[in-house]
Amino acid sequence: MITLDELRKWTPEEKFYRKYARMKRNPQKFQQFLSTLDAGNLIEHGLVIPELPETVPSYFMDEYAQSCAEGGLIPEKRHRCQPAFLHQHAFFEIVYVLEGKCLHASTSMEREMEPGDLCIIPPGVEHRIYIGEDDLALAFRCSVAAIRQIFVLSRFRDTNTVVAFFSANSMTGGSRNNSCLFMHTEHNEELRQLALDIYEENQNRYSQYIPALYAMFELFWAKAMRYYLSSCEVSSDLPANSLIVQAVYDYIRNAPENANLPALAQRLHYTPEYTSKLIRQQTGFTFSDLVSQAKISKAAHLLKNTNHTVGHIAELVGYRNAESFIRAFKREFHMTPTEYRKHI
Amino acid sequence: MITLDELRKWTPEEKFYRKYARMKRNPQKFQQFLSTLDAGNLIEHGLVIPELPETVPSYFMDEYAQSCAEGGLIPEKRHRCQPAFLHQHAFFEIVYVLEGKCLHASTSMEREMEPGDLCIIPPGVEHRIYIGEDDLALAFRCSVAAIRQIFVLSRFRDTNTVVAFFSANSMTGGSRNNSCLFMHTEHNEELRQLALDIYEENQNRYSQYIPALYAMFELFWAKAMRYYLSSCEVSSDLPANSLIVQAVYDYIRNAPENANLPALAQRLHYTPEYTSKLIRQQTGFTFSDLVSQAKISKAAHLLKNTNHTVGHIAELVGYRNAESFIRAFKREFHMTPTEYRKHI
Repeated sequence: MITLDELRKWTPEEKFYRKYARMKRNPQKFQQFLSTLDAGNLIEHGLVIPELPETVPSYFMDEYAQSCAEGGLIPEKRHRCQPAFLHQHAFFEIVYVLEGKCLHASTSMEREMEPGDLCIIPPGVEHRIYIGEDDLALAFRCSVAAIRQIFVLSRFRDTNTVVAFFSANSMTGGSRNNSCLFMHTEHNEELRQLALDIYEENQNRYSQYIPALYAMFELFWAKAMRYYLSSCEVSSDLPANSLIVQAVYDYIRNAPENANLPALAQRLHYTPEYTSKLIRQQTGFTFSDLVSQAKISKAAHLLKNTNHTVGHIAELVGYRNAESFIRAFKREFHMTPTEYRKHI
Repeated sequence: MITLDELRKWTPEEKFYRKYARMKRNPQKFQQFLSTLDAGNLIEHGLVIPELPETVPSYFMDEYAQSCAEGGLIPEKRHRCQPAFLHQHAFFEIVYVLEGKCLHASTSMEREMEPGDLCIIPPGVEHRIYIGEDDLALAFRCSVAAIRQIFVLSRFRDTNTVVAFFSANSMTGGSRNNSCLFMHTEHNEELRQLALDIYEENQNRYSQYIPALYAMFELFWAKAMRYYLSSCEVSSDLPANSLIVQAVYDYIRNAPENANLPALAQRLHYTPEYTSKLIRQQTGFTFSDLVSQAKISKAAHLLKNTNHTVGHIAELVGYRNAESFIRAFKREFHMTPTEYRKHI
């Protein structure tokens, strides 16, 4: 069984990037360091140095995800200290943070991911990723065909945020609105172990590793959806309206128990009708969908992190009674709040 | 996590069958017991008593595997003490022995399965199963569509005995030669835990249990094939020639290092040409395929159960040198004998 200690070992690529990162702090030494580099040599080794623009690929082709594993599903360790250059690719990239943090940036926003955080980056979405010296993250690279096979043609039939996101972004072969999906699986040990098992399976490549890889990847998502669906956030990059969407999310998440459309509309200086339409357009959900999701999400958080009774939590997140809370919770999680608390 | 202790608890059906089995030892009491039974009531509860022929279904329809789980994949505990009545079904049944033993019989032969043994019973194959008071076994019931999805249309592309067996028997919707496939996974803990996880997942039916069930079932087979492919035995029920096939297997398995076609042909009173043709027809393999498989199988057994060096084992099973043995072993297992020994 692979351990984090093994993943913490520095690969030759990481050593090179660490040297680059450390040199960069001293401008004089850094110029000297750069002058020793040969762009052709770097390109040959797939090493990226932004100061040598010819080494920076702006687009990674699908062949990468198709050729490296016949299956189109490649789990890798994300290089630590690799400079965060803006790029996009023809495949899906799913980043999973193991420890420390991971900087994820799009053209308009930055976000710090924490251990257990997942980020789904669809084909064609411009982004930058940075993993520091003390961080660890895995990247699952998946061809569009592999994602379609798993989430569209396969057994994931319940439509939910994650399946819908994968579906929508694998239909056209590119992102429709330049957005990524974030999911927070916190310190779930089962998911972390599965992610490590997937990585290890691909390192070993024993017989039948391809069906094993797919099976573990599907199991990973089934379990992630089971417990953390309510933590999903779609980060839209639409320049004008994303601030509005963010404001809507902030308003609702802050106190879902008190959220109401007229009050929100007033804050945004829109009519309730226009606000409602904007939300549907930008998020794909209605205002009351978002409120319900936020209530359940807050409730799940309280179930995990407090000893409050189910009845008290129902009250805190704004349900009239425990029964309607339990019903709503079961709709989302297919289990009762008590079962959820036991399993988490 | 489900434990064997929980599975050892007697269900109402099992209690009834245990009573039946115990009564049967005393002819007088047994007649009295039978007279208290109502066939209509038994049929309603799906209970089978051979002395009341109307309760014995000879054929189980596919609807069973399709309706009980939308996915067509149902893991269940096999009822202990249920009388071993001859039947067949429209779906695949895969029996996995957890402890004790399991009697498996076809119209012409009987076989005692041990813990870790798997038996794949294709649609349309007549068979009887008996699990005693001190035994435990799971049964995975799979619709033909589910098996096709997993083994024919999916990622199991390497053709091997198991995949070929599932394929051949899910093409026509029925068995071609009334045969079952047996596989011996011995005391492999990972497989046993996966089998129990699959059972538990279906008991709980939390959200996304269908993709989770399939993923774990695929992982179970990928791992089983990885380590135990060489233990596969196809039990053919063809009355005339099955004895010959059995004799061929016995001859080869007994001493694969010395096996040769002319000597075998002489024993069977056939020409070598006819023997060769018969083997290909009845098993789908050439004589030398079977010998190689038997050598590797014997080697795998020695790697597991002795401390002999790889070189010594190569010699014992009849390879000219360690290199050609390692090459042949890697072709079968995708790992070296040393790696295999470490993993098992």
